[in-house]
Amino acid sequence: MAGASKETFSLLEPMSFRNESKEVIDFIAEYYQNIEKFPVQSQVQPGYLSAMLPDSAPYYPESLQVILKDVNDCILPGLTHWQSPNFFGYFNINASTAGFLGEMLCSGFNVVGFSWFSSPAATELESIVIDWMGNLLKLPSSFLFSGTGGGVLHGTTCEAAVCILAAARDKALKQLGGWENITKLVVYASDQTHFTFQKAAKLVGIPPSNFRLVETHSSTGFSMSPKQVSLAIEHDIKSGLVPLFLVGTIGTTATGAVDPIEELGKIARKYELWFHIDAAYAGSACICPEFRPYLDGVELANSISMNPHKWFLTNMDCCCLWLKEPKFLIDSLSSDPEYLRSNASESKGVIDYKDWQIALSRRFKALKLWIVMRRHGLANLMYHIRSDINMAKRFEEFVAKDERFEIVAPRKFALVCFRLKPKEDVEGNELNRKLLEVINSSGRALVSQAVAGGVYFIRCAIGTTLTEERHVDALWKLIQEKAQSLLMAKI
Amino acid sequence: MAGASKETFSLLEPMSFRNESKEVIDFIAEYYQNIEKFPVQSQVQPGYLSAMLPDSAPYYPESLQVILKDVNDCILPGLTHWQSPNFFGYFNINASTAGFLGEMLCSGFNVVGFSWFSSPAATELESIVIDWMGNLLKLPSSFLFSGTGGGVLHGTTCEAAVCILAAARDKALKQLGGWENITKLVVYASDQTHFTFQKAAKLVGIPPSNFRLVETHSSTGFSMSPKQVSLAIEHDIKSGLVPLFLVGTIGTTATGAVDPIEELGKIARKYELWFHIDAAYAGSACICPEFRPYLDGVELANSISMNPHKWFLTNMDCCCLWLKEPKFLIDSLSSDPEYLRSNASESKGVIDYKDWQIALSRRFKALKLWIVMRRHGLANLMYHIRSDINMAKRFEEFVAKDERFEIVAPRKFALVCFRLKPKEDVEGNELNRKLLEVINSSGRALVSQAVAGGVYFIRCAIGTTLTEERHVDALWKLIQEKAQSLLMAKI
Repeated sequence: MAGASKETFSLLEPMSFRNESKEVIDFIAEYYQNIEKFPVQSQVQPGYLSAMLPDSAPYYPESLQVILKDVNDCILPGLTHWQSPNFFGYFNINASTAGFLGEMLCSGFNVVGFSWFSSPAATELESIVIDWMGNLLKLPSSFLFSGTGGGVLHGTTCEAAVCILAAARDKALKQLGGWENITKLVVYASDQTHFTFQKAAKLVGIPPSNFRLVETHSSTGFSMSPKQVSLAIEHDIKSGLVPLFLVGTIGTTATGAVDPIEELGKIARKYELWFHIDAAYAGSACICPEFRPYLDGVELANSISMNPHKWFLTNMDCCCLWLKEPKFLIDSLSSDPEYLRSNASESKGVIDYKDWQIALSRRFKALKLWIVMRRHGLANLMYHIRSDINMAKRFEEFVAKDERFEIVAPRKFALVCFRLKPKEDVEGNELNRKLLEVINSSGRALVSQAVAGGVYFIRCAIGTTLTEERHVDALWKLIQEKAQSLLMAKI
Repeated sequence: MAGASKETFSLLEPMSFRNESKEVIDFIAEYYQNIEKFPVQSQVQPGYLSAMLPDSAPYYPESLQVILKDVNDCILPGLTHWQSPNFFGYFNINASTAGFLGEMLCSGFNVVGFSWFSSPAATELESIVIDWMGNLLKLPSSFLFSGTGGGVLHGTTCEAAVCILAAARDKALKQLGGWENITKLVVYASDQTHFTFQKAAKLVGIPPSNFRLVETHSSTGFSMSPKQVSLAIEHDIKSGLVPLFLVGTIGTTATGAVDPIEELGKIARKYELWFHIDAAYAGSACICPEFRPYLDGVELANSISMNPHKWFLTNMDCCCLWLKEPKFLIDSLSSDPEYLRSNASESKGVIDYKDWQIALSRRFKALKLWIVMRRHGLANLMYHIRSDINMAKRFEEFVAKDERFEIVAPRKFALVCFRLKPKEDVEGNELNRKLLEVINSSGRALVSQAVAGGVYFIRCAIGTTLTEERHVDALWKLIQEKAQSLLMAKI
């Protein structure tokens, strides 16, 4: 037995690594080749997989062929295909060959860059690419390492939110002179801000009752009202609370709305709040000069984040966070156990990214963002953004031309929010819920939904890396077809 | 220009995906082939990389060949090579072909399984593999989905710690009836517990002054004293504080010590604390029957975590967390915005893993753990663990036989803690610091250091996936050679 198991025991031998990896590359290439043949939304029922797989791991090794057959037969049917060109749900998560290559190198080297010492290239490349990305967005030098700030790659916006909320919290608690003041700290956002900020605020110990959701309205395109924010802050101050943190969004999840960054920034300055800009989705668009004005006022923020894993062709996961004063992050998150010390860290001349994030361990994510920027170049990255936005305009025109439908919120980027106009006899929300369901269960395309101002609507987020005009046209045809059936049934 | 950029614009075209990916596979295979030729510890100086790379991203695309040349010329020299067979630092992060294949599939599919609906296979496979892993560890059914518990894959132990501390906190605050009680909550660990728990406790808003570090001693192998824990708890109760959370470790970072799980569990029961077991490193060894006894008493814990990315051949990052009552995690972390709803979620019959972790987005990490278990099989996984431990025993014998050295803490797994015995005229800590430095700066091997009971020592953690006996023998030869020079210089 020991001999038998040793015989097949080739953990990381270069030749078998090469052969087996190439077999998987072929598998994935074939998946992309055939991706349109799969129903976009998985058609499986809950529990399908446990009926197909054994209850425990095998004692003896299985061949790659057997495993890939199972991936094909058991896993693919259970995927909702985010890389399908017919996927228009949530926000797209753009994979690209370049992003994939970077992920492979990251996984192949498998280094842990928690400190400069533990793999200098991981730390240094990260600092360089975060400046590159900041330069593409024309961020003020106060956010860049080449200026007076700096940044870090997190996995997700939520991770960034937890870290900066903790930094803001600890800065405030130090000023207030005691941890018991944690229950006085207040966070401000709009009812359109991503829920992740509520989750993060609660995670860092700020009472959920101290999270203010400023109401938005369709009349202002669901953007945050600076006046309402000021009123809320004034009210809290009068109640003896301590306004701590304000988040503004560029491209909200539900409708792609943009909060008035400059005005919010002034309020944050006036009341000494930490002002964060969440540009997770639409930040990518700001590399194009025509969209850069949405970032105007960014110089008034303390921090800003955006997700290259959404619209910037960078495979999951990757979130850029820039800060004007990284020292507050480090003050809050650093630790210095003997087993992680190095001469380099003690000289204080280097960055130890473990002190910029939640976890100690970290993947070498900078590689993929670096390769994405180099393999495509700014020219193609802008082309990619503009092409998606042009397709969204095309879709928007389809909707506008069909009087059974209406646009629910102004389109700014590549997200179109629409619904079937409610008929007298049918409640609009219910009607559109049904429309969504029949579209998605068809397997031909996937869209998602949201609510803003009490109105339920359908979101068409364009596009995945593989989406072309023909897919947008087919989506519209599908929607019309399903709407027709629904409206007919109602008559 | 627009035409030119479009011409080279092949974002995810299957044929170029295939060709470029295979080129990178060859690059990585060659890296493994030559890995022993690199100095293990990078020899670069801080700032080396910014001198080699431009200040901003290119406008036009660059070829893969140019990029790979830069990876070779600029990145490889800046890596500290965690996959080198001569890497004996920290805890090893075992890459394997199987783990790499799983990472490729994860990155290739690039789905986001935040809810069951958003990619059912991602959720279902995760629940299945976490049960598989639990079965390999012979965890009680109270921790398994097939029983009454359940689990989730996080990235790191710190992420798991934040989530379970938040769950324990919110459970307690509910009982205590108000958020202001957060300043009364107390967490217990030993001075050998990984610092990540202190960081996590502070992150979730527990005052740092409420973190108790119970002192350990060399006489008990640096394991936590149940008596000291009880005393600390009693003292806090008398002071009006609320004992919340106790963490026990199987395989501490500094010395690989094992805390007395059963006794600690009984204390936690008595005082109604949440008891967590951190088996990040040594959990993997417990798949072997001879090491499973270290887990005895696990049935008294509320949660347990271990990291397959350490010693279980699973490329970064992967941390298994099991809980007896996942509902407390979900109560603390769940949220339900309209834009993420689905019929499946509303039926409550499915798992939405977004409510089991910090972030919304998540990678399909289950694939790699699944493939690691299948491609190797339990037989080979046990062989791998035992082989590393046998090499550690061999190294331990080398040390024991050389009277200039001493073993600092009992070896339980594949970590050997040793030092040069202090001479009368030389302070031991300083002497061993120098020894560490000359070993690492030689580039021939990398070891790391720790302090326990005030004693500074060198840690030799065996082994990376590629480590063989000859590497261990060469390490010992290197250590003897460097020690000899140091001792000679001191005469």
